Amino acid sequence: MIKTPAKMLLIFIDQTDTWQNRPLHEAIVRLLEQNGIAGATVLSGIMGYGIHRRIHRRGLLGVSDDKPLTIAAIDSEDKLRNVLPAVRPMVREGLIGLTDFEVIP
Amino acid sequence: MIKTPAKMLLIFIDQTDTWQNRPLHEAIVRLLEQNGIAGATVLSGIMGYGIHRRIHRRGLLGVSDDKPLTIAAIDSEDKLRNVLPAVRPMVREGLIGLTDFEVIP
Amino acid sequence: MIKTPAKMLLIFIDQTDTWQNRPLHEAIVRLLEQNGIAGATVLSGIMGYGIHRRIHRRGLLGVSDDKPLTIAAIDSEDKLRNVLPAVRPMVREGLIGLTDFEVIP
Repeated sequence: MIKTPAKMLLIFIDQTDTWQNRPLHEAIVRLLEQNGIAGATVLSGIMGYGIHRRIHRRGLLGVSDDKPLTIAAIDSEDKLRNVLPAVRPMVREGLIGLTDFEVIP
Repeated sequence: MIKTPAKMLLIFIDQTDTWQNRPLHEAIVRLLEQNGIAGATVLSGIMGYGIHRRIHRRGLLGVSDDKPLTIAAIDSEDKLRNVLPAVRPMVREGLIGLTDFEVIP
Repeated sequence: MIKTPAKMLLIFIDQTDTWQNRPLHEAIVRLLEQNGIAGATVLSGIMGYGIHRRIHRRGLLGVSDDKPLTIAAIDSEDKLRNVLPAVRPMVREGLIGLTDFEVIP
């Protein structure tokens, strides 16, 4: 059971981002799973840009060639906030946020 | 027109999940459409884990090999809550929730 | 820095939608980037239907054959609302909305 209030954690990164020589999205999903976060899904994107990338790297249309990924993770607000200090430093060029999420049991 | 307040229904399942011998995501999209829900999109994922899968099936990194899917459906809160009793039993191993959604007309 | 309150703008369109002879999702991402919106990601879908499509075009299961796309953009509520008058007329058959988003700095 997920305690209320629940939240959805959203993390916007790139497929080519790495953490300690492995894909960043795999490292984050593993961290979430090891911390007992109830569920996580990595959605695949085809195009995007972010805060830092806009400045550092520009391809066609000012948009990076990298494929973006979005990680969505669901659990109680408490559990998600507890894992944020570990996740936040892994995401050096991406965007992280929380949205309300009412779990339907 | 979508009546306010509107909501977004999010459903996290697997590409291999089935319902009555057909893909679960197709069955859910069809159900939503038949119930007049204004719009639905099935987003494709590359990796993920969920509450039950973590216990029952483990691949590399404790993560299932199945591709996850996320269904996002938008309509008034009333219409979405009315369809939940039909959708909920179809999602045996996934996670379902509602978030606020302000439709821009 | 993204000013609070932040929001997530979600736009549900089709991969085949166009705007001035180019893909609509590219035109929207370019517009968001030119208006200084902090980040945007185009997520790829495999199936979906929308308000107008349900009436105009029906394939198997009453569902269009087009691949849906979902654009997620993050910034302060002010900046996103300021760009809406330019984005709204570009999305003739899709759905646009805003959700709360607490940026984790």
